[in-house]
Amino acid sequence: MSTERIRNKNLLKKVVSPEVAAGIIKDGMTIGTHGALNVAYPKTFFKALAERGKKGEIKEINLWTISLFGPEGVLAEAGIIKRKLGSIGNNTIRKQINAGKVLSNDLRPEVFPLYTRSKVIGKVDVAVIDAVAITEEGHIVPSHTLVDAATYVEMADIVIVEINHAQPLGLEGMHDVYCCKLPPHQREVPLYHVGDRIGNPYILAGEDKITYIIESFESEKNPPASRIDPASQKLGEYLVSFFKDEVKKGKIPSKLYPIASGIGSASDAFLSCLAQSDFEDIEIFTPVLGDGVLELIDQGKCKIASTPGFLLSEEKWQPFCQNIDKYKDKIIIRSVEVTNNAEIVRRLGVIALNNLLEIDIYGNINSSHVGGAQLVNGVGGAGVFAANGYLAVFLTLSTSRKGSVSAIVPMVPHVDLTEHNIDVLVTEQGLADLRGLSPVERAEKIINNCAHPDYRPLLNEYLEKAKKTVGGHEPHILEEAFSFHLRLQQTGSMK
Amino acid sequence: MSTERIRNKNLLKKVVSPEVAAGIIKDGMTIGTHGALNVAYPKTFFKALAERGKKGEIKEINLWTISLFGPEGVLAEAGIIKRKLGSIGNNTIRKQINAGKVLSNDLRPEVFPLYTRSKVIGKVDVAVIDAVAITEEGHIVPSHTLVDAATYVEMADIVIVEINHAQPLGLEGMHDVYCCKLPPHQREVPLYHVGDRIGNPYILAGEDKITYIIESFESEKNPPASRIDPASQKLGEYLVSFFKDEVKKGKIPSKLYPIASGIGSASDAFLSCLAQSDFEDIEIFTPVLGDGVLELIDQGKCKIASTPGFLLSEEKWQPFCQNIDKYKDKIIIRSVEVTNNAEIVRRLGVIALNNLLEIDIYGNINSSHVGGAQLVNGVGGAGVFAANGYLAVFLTLSTSRKGSVSAIVPMVPHVDLTEHNIDVLVTEQGLADLRGLSPVERAEKIINNCAHPDYRPLLNEYLEKAKKTVGGHEPHILEEAFSFHLRLQQTGSMK
Repeated sequence: MSTERIRNKNLLKKVVSPEVAAGIIKDGMTIGTHGALNVAYPKTFFKALAERGKKGEIKEINLWTISLFGPEGVLAEAGIIKRKLGSIGNNTIRKQINAGKVLSNDLRPEVFPLYTRSKVIGKVDVAVIDAVAITEEGHIVPSHTLVDAATYVEMADIVIVEINHAQPLGLEGMHDVYCCKLPPHQREVPLYHVGDRIGNPYILAGEDKITYIIESFESEKNPPASRIDPASQKLGEYLVSFFKDEVKKGKIPSKLYPIASGIGSASDAFLSCLAQSDFEDIEIFTPVLGDGVLELIDQGKCKIASTPGFLLSEEKWQPFCQNIDKYKDKIIIRSVEVTNNAEIVRRLGVIALNNLLEIDIYGNINSSHVGGAQLVNGVGGAGVFAANGYLAVFLTLSTSRKGSVSAIVPMVPHVDLTEHNIDVLVTEQGLADLRGLSPVERAEKIINNCAHPDYRPLLNEYLEKAKKTVGGHEPHILEEAFSFHLRLQQTGSMK
Repeated sequence: MSTERIRNKNLLKKVVSPEVAAGIIKDGMTIGTHGALNVAYPKTFFKALAERGKKGEIKEINLWTISLFGPEGVLAEAGIIKRKLGSIGNNTIRKQINAGKVLSNDLRPEVFPLYTRSKVIGKVDVAVIDAVAITEEGHIVPSHTLVDAATYVEMADIVIVEINHAQPLGLEGMHDVYCCKLPPHQREVPLYHVGDRIGNPYILAGEDKITYIIESFESEKNPPASRIDPASQKLGEYLVSFFKDEVKKGKIPSKLYPIASGIGSASDAFLSCLAQSDFEDIEIFTPVLGDGVLELIDQGKCKIASTPGFLLSEEKWQPFCQNIDKYKDKIIIRSVEVTNNAEIVRRLGVIALNNLLEIDIYGNINSSHVGGAQLVNGVGGAGVFAANGYLAVFLTLSTSRKGSVSAIVPMVPHVDLTEHNIDVLVTEQGLADLRGLSPVERAEKIINNCAHPDYRPLLNEYLEKAKKTVGGHEPHILEEAFSFHLRLQQTGSMK
């Protein structure tokens, strides 16, 4: 038992094996947990719980997590998830959800704390927290992903802390844990600059609040680094050049507004172009932080970054751990109810970058359901950023699957974000500034600036026919609106 | 000239005829104005401007207004609107927009002040303000609809004030004008209770800011009162009974949260049921205030109401004017950047009632485009309330056009609000609490609780076939998703 990491003497008595901790779970309980995809989550606890499932000791539990693949994976394999709230990523649970075996709602991240506190859809019984340490007072220093962990601790009767020895103790001091209140007790969230600290460096718990502690020595399995392909590079260049132009026109300040950069190849490409540009003192206010921001920090271009959690590649993870003091005054890990808060996103004027699956000619966005039916990951935090940011930018390559799928289609069969939530679309083909335009003007810009040349004639043909035969403010031919998707189903290509 | 209404001596010299005032407008200018549908807008100014259009002196102007039919009407008839920003309502402009003759973007109300200040899509050149008085200091006391008038005055080079003698001077003191700032200068909006006053009782202007003043003696043309039909009455009863139940379960406080009541027959029916219930001290925080709230006040049930503007029926308008002192401490007229502010809607925990055109079985909502193509009014402020309120309730009768159109369809051909923005659907058939449910669970509840019995078999048939033949998280058959709409086009009925 590590007294360096568990500093409260009485709490040392609560250290148990993962099996004992998992033994407290009863059928039908709701578990809230946190993490970042496949890292920084309570690994040994969920493995032990899955074992109980396999033995038939547990038949079904409900899982509340935002973008966390680990527990989903082992619990889904054990077949014990009845209901899953939040975006998903693990392939086993994805299959179960799409087969109708697991009930799922890809609830918006900002709603989790509200639901947890108000209990409007039931109580979160158990909080399972991944931590690097417990303080002398019994408060919890989480690992590098906070998300909504603090709300679960606040509201659950059972709190299980997994001390994650693979995570550096140096993370201590990087968190800023602020908890909102339910109306009518909520005041303003007093954050006015990306770097403001408004809460505690730990999750408020205390000796009595913690039920069990377990220790994990498993190493973290960070994903491989994503390579910046030439197309994404081009997309990044278009976007940086757009920002330069906006600054010239006086539409955004020369130091830019805080950027919600997200993760992925397109976002990394943009950040790398930004690092090579003249922009300085860049502020990041993002719902997830990846390699790109770390590089921006390494190059002295990033003033401060705020995020509810990281997802670093295996190549960046070790250098991060070894040089953690360098990053400590550059990164603040916050609760999701601050990072994904409409009040703050609007106040700071966040420039929100978001990915998508496909977008229609008028600007409606599908970011979650392939063919309208099959869930991929979920909508995530895009909504609050796109609706409340100063500028909502969507990034996508114009085609995928070797050109057989166009990211721009006549009509999307599932809408996660509407035409009112997009300001700018950028692909490797170019950029479309859609602000204030009519639907038909948007369609013309999206097709001619952003669609792949292979698909432009087909898209223009649809638009012209719709204008001519149906007309209206946003012309659509209902019989042909999904022609791209049906052709893909039938021939394997949208062409 | 009225010195009672124009109290600054120097400004009396700026009183001109509507023709002179309209003479300042040049081709291509952008005009920002305000009002409530067909009342409380600068009537004589826009008539004079339309006359200039008919004479060929003005060819095209751009109009920025939120839900204001009057100027749209006369200017559209003169054929001089090039671009219209904001929801629409007048039939002439609707036809022009749907014919592609007027460029239109039904911009969300909360974005207007941001665009006006940041000038990201260009400058608002002229503010035309409907007012009951100008103070000694030259500040403007608007008529009963403020909306975004203050931002136009703040940003426009030309400010024209139309003193509206048909509006009671007693409105003075009812306004609370607060202006936001662009990031990074924006702080919290310091409103913590519906009744808080955080701004000025007038629009800050001053002698130099005002270009011209005109006087109007035309009477207001308030619409006739909407009758509460038995179906809406039933809908209202379901909703009040749901709230009672939520209070019992401890999910909302016994005095309820502030209600965004909206207007229309369903909303009035709900408010009338609420007035007859045991609920007391009801607070209203609504994007538009109608007869229903006035009745709630008359019956001593309403503690305080906040709104960016009214729309009263002709039956309520005269009693309102005659008893204005009674309403003065019950109603606060605010800027749209406070009333439609995500920060405030979330902080107060607003219970948001919204209407819709149609909703699909999974909860996606079309509130603006018939058949996906033809614009009706626009999306309005629904988004910010539905996404940030404590509870997002959508109200609709289950059918329209004598039963030939179902408000519940397999897939909506236009999405204004997604399945993530609805908590509760209520029709005269019943109520569906959708919080936390999976898409298929939502579909079952919506169909069986809310759809008209005539359409339930058809909807269930679609759902079952989609589950069986396509499957997935949100099963949809793309070839048949619009079968209801196509049948309506072909046979005149969705049946």
